[in-house]
Amino acid sequence: MKQYKITVIGLGLIGGSMAVDLKRRGFASRVMGVEADPVNAAAALKIGLVDQAVSYDRCLEDTDLVILAVPVGEAVRMLPEILDRIGSEKQDSGMKRHMTVIDVCSTKSALVRSVENHPCRDRYVSTHPMAGTEYSGPWAAMSGMFDGKACVICDGEKSGKDALETVENLYDVLNMRTIRMNAINHDMHAAYVSHISHVTSFALALTVLKKERSDRHIFDLASGGFSSTVRLAKSNADMWVPILTQNRDNILDVIDTYMDEMKAFRDAIASGDGDGIRGLIGEANRIKRIIK
Amino acid sequence: MKQYKITVIGLGLIGGSMAVDLKRRGFASRVMGVEADPVNAAAALKIGLVDQAVSYDRCLEDTDLVILAVPVGEAVRMLPEILDRIGSEKQDSGMKRHMTVIDVCSTKSALVRSVENHPCRDRYVSTHPMAGTEYSGPWAAMSGMFDGKACVICDGEKSGKDALETVENLYDVLNMRTIRMNAINHDMHAAYVSHISHVTSFALALTVLKKERSDRHIFDLASGGFSSTVRLAKSNADMWVPILTQNRDNILDVIDTYMDEMKAFRDAIASGDGDGIRGLIGEANRIKRIIK
Repeated sequence: MKQYKITVIGLGLIGGSMAVDLKRRGFASRVMGVEADPVNAAAALKIGLVDQAVSYDRCLEDTDLVILAVPVGEAVRMLPEILDRIGSEKQDSGMKRHMTVIDVCSTKSALVRSVENHPCRDRYVSTHPMAGTEYSGPWAAMSGMFDGKACVICDGEKSGKDALETVENLYDVLNMRTIRMNAINHDMHAAYVSHISHVTSFALALTVLKKERSDRHIFDLASGGFSSTVRLAKSNADMWVPILTQNRDNILDVIDTYMDEMKAFRDAIASGDGDGIRGLIGEANRIKRIIK
Repeated sequence: MKQYKITVIGLGLIGGSMAVDLKRRGFASRVMGVEADPVNAAAALKIGLVDQAVSYDRCLEDTDLVILAVPVGEAVRMLPEILDRIGSEKQDSGMKRHMTVIDVCSTKSALVRSVENHPCRDRYVSTHPMAGTEYSGPWAAMSGMFDGKACVICDGEKSGKDALETVENLYDVLNMRTIRMNAINHDMHAAYVSHISHVTSFALALTVLKKERSDRHIFDLASGGFSSTVRLAKSNADMWVPILTQNRDNILDVIDTYMDEMKAFRDAIASGDGDGIRGLIGEANRIKRIIK
């Protein structure tokens, strides 16, 4: 297998987990890591997520592939900078190197728009590996996290053929199946199937914390059902604030549908309409056929 | 250890799982099962959940302990009948036997009210073992399901001392920690910490099924986060219709708070108020300190 020198910018849950498996499974001959937070950087080195820490300024030196694994707000700022630097290096070096840059963010439209007309647009591949946990930071990184999950590759026709091949190869090593979709559709579907469940989970946590004054009662009475429903409410604001703001219109649309469904439930319960409740539950149960 | 002959009425997830572990762990010398659905009854015998099937009419013959594990709508109808039969048998036999009856339903007020002034009220112990999965039926039953979870015992002062001891012993064998609470408080806390998360999950499933026309997209794009949040939407209408109608007032109250929280999120997202979203997420994150 061809081996790559890779640089991971952002050594959190996603970046750290990719670093571990890409090295362990032989895709990467060497992993360099960029991490702005000094505690996280020290931990990532100590845990052994990367071979070497580098500064953001020097992160393109002697590397074949850059993985941008920072929150999407920062990614939108960094991606054009990185392509700029690839462009100027290409000029200096007579285009000897074919560096590839990917991001792994949960919203894609703003990112692809940020480099739409960039002369080095072909070096960038927009990807969303759909895996994770509610935890964050280098200590949350783990091997095998991506195995068997799906990864969306957006607007692939705008990336260079060799860059796409490298990225297909990378996700193959992570045991992910890749799905092609344009960035606008991705953001719409992601709002329906992923982002909304974070919002409902945050709202559930806020509700329980407000209604249930006793932490002890929550701890005692929370069965597995509640824990799994509220699990995503542990998710990190640094990651989710930019997702919810960037994907605003899709998320508002799906929140409105959701509020209508909640209201239908409320009305059926308020009027003691057992058949109505049964109909709604029966309809909701259809999810069984789709989600294991 | 003292051994009991027990009868489980309703061989679904909860009744079946109790039957298995109470026999396996030596609490029950013999387990009889009552199951109205012929397919479920045959399956329960074949799987080996119970030693013997009996009819509802004969379910009190030669038994020490009856576990009422049917949906709460049926339980409210059956419980007074069972206490009636215990009463007439006591008269016939000169009170030789001290039978105990428990239910395992998720709402308690209607049940305890249904036998409030019953002459055999002391033979009944109102319990809610807070464990389960989103699956139902005898095939969903499993050993170990209750281990380490909490069980609420309601209005214990109205049960006979020996009945309470039997039930404490039973839940001890199931490795549950018992919590005492009155039925009214139980139903309020259960609405906050358990019932609401089923409603939000049903509404989430309805939303996704409505917005996302393609089953394939749901399957492909649903990451672990969505699956865990929507998991409870697979729950059974037979169980949940009576819970939601019996616990109506508490559930409406918590739905209203929940809708307010959703609205706060919607407003912050709509106005692009990053700090507002960050504040809400930070507040929701407090659940981390309580739920592991």
